[in-house]
Amino acid sequence: MTEATAQRRGRSGGGAARRAARSVTSVETARFITRNIPDMEILNEEALEIIEHNAETVLEEIGVNFVNNPGALARWKEAGAEIEGERVRIPRGLARQLCSTAPSQFTQVARNSARNVEIGGRNLVLAPVYGPPFVHDAVGGRRYATIEDFRNFVKLGQMSRWLHHSGGTVCEPTDVPVNKRHLDMLHAHMTLSDKPFMGSVTEPSRAQDSVDMCGVLFGKDFVQDNTVMTSLVNINSPLTFDDTMMGALEVYAANNQACIVSPFIVGGAMAPVSVAGTLTQVLAEVMAGVAYSQLVRKGAPVIFGAFVTSIDMNSGAPTFGTPEASQITYGAGQLARRLGLPFRSAGSFCGSKLPDAQAAYETANTLNNGLYAGVNFMLHACGWLEGGLVASYEKFVMDADQLGALHKMAAGVAMDENAQAMDALREVGPGGHYLGCAHTQANFKEAFWRSELLDYKPFETWAEEGSRDTMVLAGARVRKLLDTYEQPPLDPAIAEALSAFVAEKKAAQPDSFT
Amino acid sequence: MTEATAQRRGRSGGGAARRAARSVTSVETARFITRNIPDMEILNEEALEIIEHNAETVLEEIGVNFVNNPGALARWKEAGAEIEGERVRIPRGLARQLCSTAPSQFTQVARNSARNVEIGGRNLVLAPVYGPPFVHDAVGGRRYATIEDFRNFVKLGQMSRWLHHSGGTVCEPTDVPVNKRHLDMLHAHMTLSDKPFMGSVTEPSRAQDSVDMCGVLFGKDFVQDNTVMTSLVNINSPLTFDDTMMGALEVYAANNQACIVSPFIVGGAMAPVSVAGTLTQVLAEVMAGVAYSQLVRKGAPVIFGAFVTSIDMNSGAPTFGTPEASQITYGAGQLARRLGLPFRSAGSFCGSKLPDAQAAYETANTLNNGLYAGVNFMLHACGWLEGGLVASYEKFVMDADQLGALHKMAAGVAMDENAQAMDALREVGPGGHYLGCAHTQANFKEAFWRSELLDYKPFETWAEEGSRDTMVLAGARVRKLLDTYEQPPLDPAIAEALSAFVAEKKAAQPDSFT
Repeated sequence: MTEATAQRRGRSGGGAARRAARSVTSVETARFITRNIPDMEILNEEALEIIEHNAETVLEEIGVNFVNNPGALARWKEAGAEIEGERVRIPRGLARQLCSTAPSQFTQVARNSARNVEIGGRNLVLAPVYGPPFVHDAVGGRRYATIEDFRNFVKLGQMSRWLHHSGGTVCEPTDVPVNKRHLDMLHAHMTLSDKPFMGSVTEPSRAQDSVDMCGVLFGKDFVQDNTVMTSLVNINSPLTFDDTMMGALEVYAANNQACIVSPFIVGGAMAPVSVAGTLTQVLAEVMAGVAYSQLVRKGAPVIFGAFVTSIDMNSGAPTFGTPEASQITYGAGQLARRLGLPFRSAGSFCGSKLPDAQAAYETANTLNNGLYAGVNFMLHACGWLEGGLVASYEKFVMDADQLGALHKMAAGVAMDENAQAMDALREVGPGGHYLGCAHTQANFKEAFWRSELLDYKPFETWAEEGSRDTMVLAGARVRKLLDTYEQPPLDPAIAEALSAFVAEKKAAQPDSFT
Repeated sequence: MTEATAQRRGRSGGGAARRAARSVTSVETARFITRNIPDMEILNEEALEIIEHNAETVLEEIGVNFVNNPGALARWKEAGAEIEGERVRIPRGLARQLCSTAPSQFTQVARNSARNVEIGGRNLVLAPVYGPPFVHDAVGGRRYATIEDFRNFVKLGQMSRWLHHSGGTVCEPTDVPVNKRHLDMLHAHMTLSDKPFMGSVTEPSRAQDSVDMCGVLFGKDFVQDNTVMTSLVNINSPLTFDDTMMGALEVYAANNQACIVSPFIVGGAMAPVSVAGTLTQVLAEVMAGVAYSQLVRKGAPVIFGAFVTSIDMNSGAPTFGTPEASQITYGAGQLARRLGLPFRSAGSFCGSKLPDAQAAYETANTLNNGLYAGVNFMLHACGWLEGGLVASYEKFVMDADQLGALHKMAAGVAMDENAQAMDALREVGPGGHYLGCAHTQANFKEAFWRSELLDYKPFETWAEEGSRDTMVLAGARVRKLLDTYEQPPLDPAIAEALSAFVAEKKAAQPDSFT
């Protein structure tokens, strides 16, 4: 078959054109995914009702803590909750009722409007890894991340065809003072990428800086009328809402900006060891957090988040790509849809120290899980390594390539007359082959998803070229992407104003590394 | 959290016991999977009806070829088909009607009855890689397979907790004459494993040898009354049934033994480049093949097979773990269930030359696909490398480990009172942790699936131990399993009779290597 194809390519004369096309690095970005396949629903109606009932019991009987946050306690009291110290007990049905004013879908605007994303409904938006203090590549090994690494990952994200979102803390720029990092990070997203991005959540004042910088980039009024950031607000599971994260949420909600309200759960540590118990806690936590966002500003855009892994009971290490984490993600997706909220979960999760087979098994398990669970916003969709401690250069492009397969899978199966291919079946008949038939000629370019990274060569060619494994191929792709990166155009006046904003904010306070 | 867990382990004093338990190599085999989760159905009713209508059109208008097989043509003529040369055109509805006498589920008996498997319904039976002429390991590299390799893979299969079936040609023992290989292969399955296995299909006479050897192992009458082999009968797609494969099917069907009737399709070469077109051809081919099995013997057990990959249109190479292959597998599962037949598809498919990240992404994509597609018999569930040219020692144990995750996922979500964990939620409350609570203590051992291979250690420990990647860890596991392998007991009289059968058959014919 290889020979037959080689002959065909010789005859068609298209080989050179195709090779030329392949040598250009793609910077085209695919539209966010709109699913044309059903969701995987592993819980039946009875199970969902039990979990919803139990979550209401948790909110009513046990309650949640809003820590160091008298304003929040006052808002909850006014809404009808019972306050005892920092404990908020929410009468059955109240949280769900408050959640109902949150939109089921919203647009996050990018500075390049062709890259706006729709979050919610049948859509899936993909964003890169978030939070690692370390980076890793095959040449430099594992080391603390710097702002140069941060900028490199933003560039890789901008260059990734299948990534719709530039993300947030793609790695922690540990060489920049803690109190000034957010300024450099936002500046990188705003100037090196034209995809949508996330704001800072490490201090309410930094959330306000994020809003103000967006005012410079988009215009102040525009920001009040449009959602231009989706930011990550973690819950201190179990059942605790700290003042830092809630302070950031208050800033964003008040400014019409989106937050992901996300339990952060390593099952067995921050939640019960059972799937049903964890789902109960996740639902209670998300309902309390989302309800609170609506107490701050009715209609504020918000996402039902669920970061879930299980634990290795022998070592205490979090584990990834496991069946229990997938089951929780499937269940959480069903609960989110019943609440009418956009859903965030899954990602390129793995526990491996290298972008090896372990990393890929665990990641592929989770990416498939995320697609089928009806996730609407997938943070960490590429680049995650070692339980999230490390952003991997090679794994970033390896995962980003796999995201292409999700696009094709989600598109579903075409059933028009061309797709039915009855003419091809008639033309070829028993014992023939389809390589040269008219239907193949007309359709082969778009027929099959094709990796831009993986090796499809015969063994002999692959061996001659140095028997490269996936990490080596990925390293070459990283270098090629960074070498051919081009900065997206930005109005010079805005670029100057952003730099001035950052410089002024930095000058106004001493460096802090804690 | 790691520290907290380490303290707990110190207190509980169970660490040593757990370490001792881990050092014993598991030879326990899990029961075949019974799914407690729904199937993924990506085609709607209208799409399924279009494909079924078109498949009937293919059978009626285009027909299929039964090559060098006057007996088959006579059977088809008598059944009402139109014969023209070797072409068989089957009136609309006839093939489906003939298929209806095939059982929707059957038992394949193993010589250890605890390892009998149920094929069909909500069940999933996992069998190892089939057919590679080469083997690969990290030490010896890629080389032609020998009978020693074959025996090693049978031993690894016997030792794999998550593998229910010993398979067939786990690799081609190229050092044994072609006309005698089947005898050594069956002898290995029958004596080195007590799991169910497959028979030879490379000649009708070798299929008969397989039946006769089973007569020695199980007793002649027992074989006529029970299905003791499930064998792989490929269709020469498109639409061609050769006399070798059909000859084997005739032997097996006549003796009440099961066959997988399996289109062998690299999309774009042996089938149209579209998913809908390929499904149409797959359905037409399977219906013709299964119908023929019922013409040989009404009620003979048979499986709806679908081996499907796509093609890389640049190189002509088959590609694996792609979205199109997954879509075809989902659709074929739906079609098989509508026909009321057990379904075979998916496996540890990959195109990579090494058990690296590419191999793992592609394999995990396909294993998840197979589970969710409702596959009942998954051949190639572990060990497949390089498009099936290679059986990989390391990948065999890597994939076999991942199969454990499928078991846990398929079990679904428990919803009993213990699983709801309301007491744990009440006990821990906001800000606590679950590591020490009563519910965790009572449930942690069974709560989470745990890999027996992957690395969950902290970075520092992992680095001290040599920074081993998954292939290195897998190589160590292969050696450990082979070193601790124990042959399952077999009645010495039967063992002697099997050896005598093989010796006699070998002596009766000269060696042939073609």
